[in-house]
Amino acid sequence: MAHISLSPELPGITAGFAFRPETAAPMRALAHALLFDPGSETSLSSFERELIASYVSSRNRCYFCQASHGAAAASHGGETPELVAAICTDPNAADIPEKLKALLAIAACVQGDAKSVTEAHIAAARAEGASDLDIHDTVLIAAAFCMYNRYVDGLATWQPQDAAMYRAMGTQLAEHGYAQGALAER
Amino acid sequence: MAHISLSPELPGITAGFAFRPETAAPMRALAHALLFDPGSETSLSSFERELIASYVSSRNRCYFCQASHGAAAASHGGETPELVAAICTDPNAADIPEKLKALLAIAACVQGDAKSVTEAHIAAARAEGASDLDIHDTVLIAAAFCMYNRYVDGLATWQPQDAAMYRAMGTQLAEHGYAQGALAER
Repeated sequence: MAHISLSPELPGITAGFAFRPETAAPMRALAHALLFDPGSETSLSSFERELIASYVSSRNRCYFCQASHGAAAASHGGETPELVAAICTDPNAADIPEKLKALLAIAACVQGDAKSVTEAHIAAARAEGASDLDIHDTVLIAAAFCMYNRYVDGLATWQPQDAAMYRAMGTQLAEHGYAQGALAER
Repeated sequence: MAHISLSPELPGITAGFAFRPETAAPMRALAHALLFDPGSETSLSSFERELIASYVSSRNRCYFCQASHGAAAASHGGETPELVAAICTDPNAADIPEKLKALLAIAACVQGDAKSVTEAHIAAARAEGASDLDIHDTVLIAAAFCMYNRYVDGLATWQPQDAAMYRAMGTQLAEHGYAQGALAER
């Protein structure tokens, strides 16, 4: 049961959003800008952004965020959420570009102790073609999911284990984003 | 030196905000709603909210956020930033209300592992008069500063150690908030 009085039929972060619309609006706007509408065709794709979000959520052991953003990544990338989860579990063993591996290594540092990002991490990402914007957005996606994950778990929200629900949510998120999307407080 | 090309004269989070205005806007709006304009006169004061922000930042060892929000708390509460820092270092030894101590204990859990917030923590806060909104906002302030802190440190921003600068910033924040305030990308 949640720690405060949340709508029992709303899963994960949607229950917190419904409880407090004043904070939900900027939190949804931030996710939209970071994951769905980055405003640059030369920067990371939404597949890569959602993958970083799911990866950080898995490291924070936040089931709702890992599953929903894994499903969104899958929908963007034409993969299954299960394959995305496997990539997140061990990125270095996965068949993904070296640039993405280098950015996920930065995300892992930020998720733990953000001061542990070194010049060597940055140089490795740059060597694979990462731009300042790519690095900035990787750091901020990782930081932001340290917020979203803690919000979901710190309130002890309801996190159903229903693959079909997350798959539908992922499709919604991939098609419409976050501003008025599937994670809105409906 | 920062990991990406940031304006060298902008301290801490303001440099990240200037680099990426699209994400700065919702991040500032969230801080404004959570810390400055909570929209309820019966909930936590801005002094208490800024104290939670500074406390979490100190636990994340983020100097810029600890100092700036400590200075904002001091300005709201009519205290010195040094006294606020001492309260943050050991809340249980400080002369603050039991309700605030109970909320800071919840914030400490969220800062570490958000799943470690227990019914006992919640019951202790309720016994001192904490409402659902107080608990919600405490969890979200703690979660949000796990984002802001990681953003500041993950980019390796410039964090000057200049007490007068933080004092001026704290006064600005306490008077004008965040929407177009002292932490904007000017």
